Amino acid sequence: MSAPITAGELDAAGAALAAESARFAGLGWMRGTSGNLSVTLRTDPLRLAVTTSGRDKGELTPQDVVVVDAAGAAVPDQPRPGRRPSAEAGLHARVAARAGAGAVVHVHVIAPVLAAARWPGGIVLRDLEMLKGLGRSAHDDEVTVPVVPNGQDMTWLGDRFDEVFDPATPALVVAGHGVYVWGDDLAQARHRTECLEWLTSFALAADQHTS
Amino acid sequence: MSAPITAGELDAAGAALAAESARFAGLGWMRGTSGNLSVTLRTDPLRLAVTTSGRDKGELTPQDVVVVDAAGAAVPDQPRPGRRPSAEAGLHARVAARAGAGAVVHVHVIAPVLAAARWPGGIVLRDLEMLKGLGRSAHDDEVTVPVVPNGQDMTWLGDRFDEVFDPATPALVVAGHGVYVWGDDLAQARHRTECLEWLTSFALAADQHTS
Amino acid sequence: MSAPITAGELDAAGAALAAESARFAGLGWMRGTSGNLSVTLRTDPLRLAVTTSGRDKGELTPQDVVVVDAAGAAVPDQPRPGRRPSAEAGLHARVAARAGAGAVVHVHVIAPVLAAARWPGGIVLRDLEMLKGLGRSAHDDEVTVPVVPNGQDMTWLGDRFDEVFDPATPALVVAGHGVYVWGDDLAQARHRTECLEWLTSFALAADQHTS
Amino acid sequence: MSAPITAGELDAAGAALAAESARFAGLGWMRGTSGNLSVTLRTDPLRLAVTTSGRDKGELTPQDVVVVDAAGAAVPDQPRPGRRPSAEAGLHARVAARAGAGAVVHVHVIAPVLAAARWPGGIVLRDLEMLKGLGRSAHDDEVTVPVVPNGQDMTWLGDRFDEVFDPATPALVVAGHGVYVWGDDLAQARHRTECLEWLTSFALAADQHTS
Repeated sequence: MSAPITAGELDAAGAALAAESARFAGLGWMRGTSGNLSVTLRTDPLRLAVTTSGRDKGELTPQDVVVVDAAGAAVPDQPRPGRRPSAEAGLHARVAARAGAGAVVHVHVIAPVLAAARWPGGIVLRDLEMLKGLGRSAHDDEVTVPVVPNGQDMTWLGDRFDEVFDPATPALVVAGHGVYVWGDDLAQARHRTECLEWLTSFALAADQHTS
Repeated sequence: MSAPITAGELDAAGAALAAESARFAGLGWMRGTSGNLSVTLRTDPLRLAVTTSGRDKGELTPQDVVVVDAAGAAVPDQPRPGRRPSAEAGLHARVAARAGAGAVVHVHVIAPVLAAARWPGGIVLRDLEMLKGLGRSAHDDEVTVPVVPNGQDMTWLGDRFDEVFDPATPALVVAGHGVYVWGDDLAQARHRTECLEWLTSFALAADQHTS
Repeated sequence: MSAPITAGELDAAGAALAAESARFAGLGWMRGTSGNLSVTLRTDPLRLAVTTSGRDKGELTPQDVVVVDAAGAAVPDQPRPGRRPSAEAGLHARVAARAGAGAVVHVHVIAPVLAAARWPGGIVLRDLEMLKGLGRSAHDDEVTVPVVPNGQDMTWLGDRFDEVFDPATPALVVAGHGVYVWGDDLAQARHRTECLEWLTSFALAADQHTS
Repeated sequence: MSAPITAGELDAAGAALAAESARFAGLGWMRGTSGNLSVTLRTDPLRLAVTTSGRDKGELTPQDVVVVDAAGAAVPDQPRPGRRPSAEAGLHARVAARAGAGAVVHVHVIAPVLAAARWPGGIVLRDLEMLKGLGRSAHDDEVTVPVVPNGQDMTWLGDRFDEVFDPATPALVVAGHGVYVWGDDLAQARHRTECLEWLTSFALAADQHTS
């Protein structure tokens, strides 16, 4: 059994999540109050700090964070109980557990969602230097970013994720919805999200220019 | 009969409207001196605080606000009489009265206007998570954002709005012009405007990619 | 004969031009060191304050300004002689003289130049509210933004401008190059430039979506 | 034999490189941790200050710089040894040596890479004022921006660069990857990068509108 999560630890996670959320909001990838970010605080049992639901993601404070368990439910034993996690916290937890991620980004960036509409069976990428940003190779490698249908039941959606999960590809596109991208920490998850946006923007535009 | 509007109350509304206008201007959605924003101050009789006409919307001050009645006309009994409301204040008032809105946003964001040119009978959206940002469902729901022709007579335009108004859809596109989006307060109206922009950008691009 | 231009007067013009240039540079409309802005200081004889050549337009200071005459040549009798005006100052002066403009904006904003490539005989716009931002009507009005071929001889280019000049349309597109937009002052010239960008972006996208 | 590189000299180069990197990152041209910038410190033997590998390019400090030789390898005799240069430093050095450049910019800006996918034999540009920003003429001049295939071996890639190098064209596009652009100093290299982005964006869009 791991040590309890302290207020200072949660504040630090909240500050990092608020800063990253503001950065994504500035990019226009968290329109409305969409999207949420998480970091893994404990792995046994799993505990994530996830941004709270329904707030403008450009205006979060370090207090706009809640601790959830492996099912995405708020745990009672936390420094600031009573805040409501996003329903999507359940998928964050599934991703963190399965991929061993230290941070998960869920944003409504538009290019990957358009690419998923264009290629609903998975977005195939190859021969692009930016693939290195996803931990893959720029040559002689074919990367398929998996696409799953949208859903509101996180257990069902987590099962879809499990079916398509590939340890070598740190991203998932939910059709008509947005992306989940993960990494060892928030910086890596953000860098990978930026690379996925570049890659899918490129793939869509190249498809237009050559068709 | 409701209480008179105080200078402090109008200043607070003006500060909120100026801050929101600057944010929209930063997004490029209030080019030139276009667009205007309002908040509802009283409902019986109806009184709105609306941004003044002809100013750069990125440079408004809390004083650039005027109180209008249900016809969009400046009322004589206000803390700073003499400022000229936009002609479009009349449609703000119609929207606020009919929809019971606390805030109305009118901006010249380009994607919904392009979508209205593409689908002049109404912009049909379905199976998109961002629809939740408009208060609708991401699944098994078909949302038609109504489109009305442009006009300079706000009574005529208000009648067109009345014909297409659906309480479940907090947005109206005026063809060749811009959007009206509303909500309980400025934050909700802004979030819905952002979601409408995302949804119409997505619909246009998806239509291009698949046609 | 008008009064000499004082250092204070030129400093004020330089500060306004630097601030506006930085704003346009932030929009990405003055890439490289492209573009230049001017204000009219005297009309008899004509004297313009124009930004100096070859500087990053996001980093101008109030000193990066030079006084030119009706031919766009630096005048000897000025507070800070010796700075080199852009060759394009000659066209600024032609526009200011013919249109009676208080300010002229020349920027390499891409949408109008693309529209000129699409419609080299002139960009026809109608039934768009944003036309009011150019001083025209949103209805029952057809606005043709004139297009002239590019050239390096400002006398020749000024003659082309003279041939297409319409007092009702405060804008000119130079094919493969950029735009000149004017108004009573820098704010109006900027607002009109923003509206022209919106209008031409709209026209191009609408043409794509319906063709 | 030239004088040793002092800590003060390297700090100054690092500060300039960090500031330019942050500017490019703000434009979205250094997504993930992609890209790198260099300045030439000595020519005999060749010494470049190049940004270090694997950092967020919007968050570099003046210390995130390393001195490399003509092969792109870190030299032992430098103020802060031990930092790892990007593998791409090898191509920076090849470009600096061959072109006599004072600064080289390598960024993953998307438009030139898309243009290279559209025109893999070289991107032909003509009759565009922005060509002056590359040191060419706006008229009666045909500029071919060379395209080389991507590769991870900088010696091989440098040989490809040697094959296509034209002293009159200060830019190279690496297919599926990004651009190298150079100039006398960082400001000129940046201005040319901005112009290349404008030119390739224009060429792609014009090709779409007319095809």
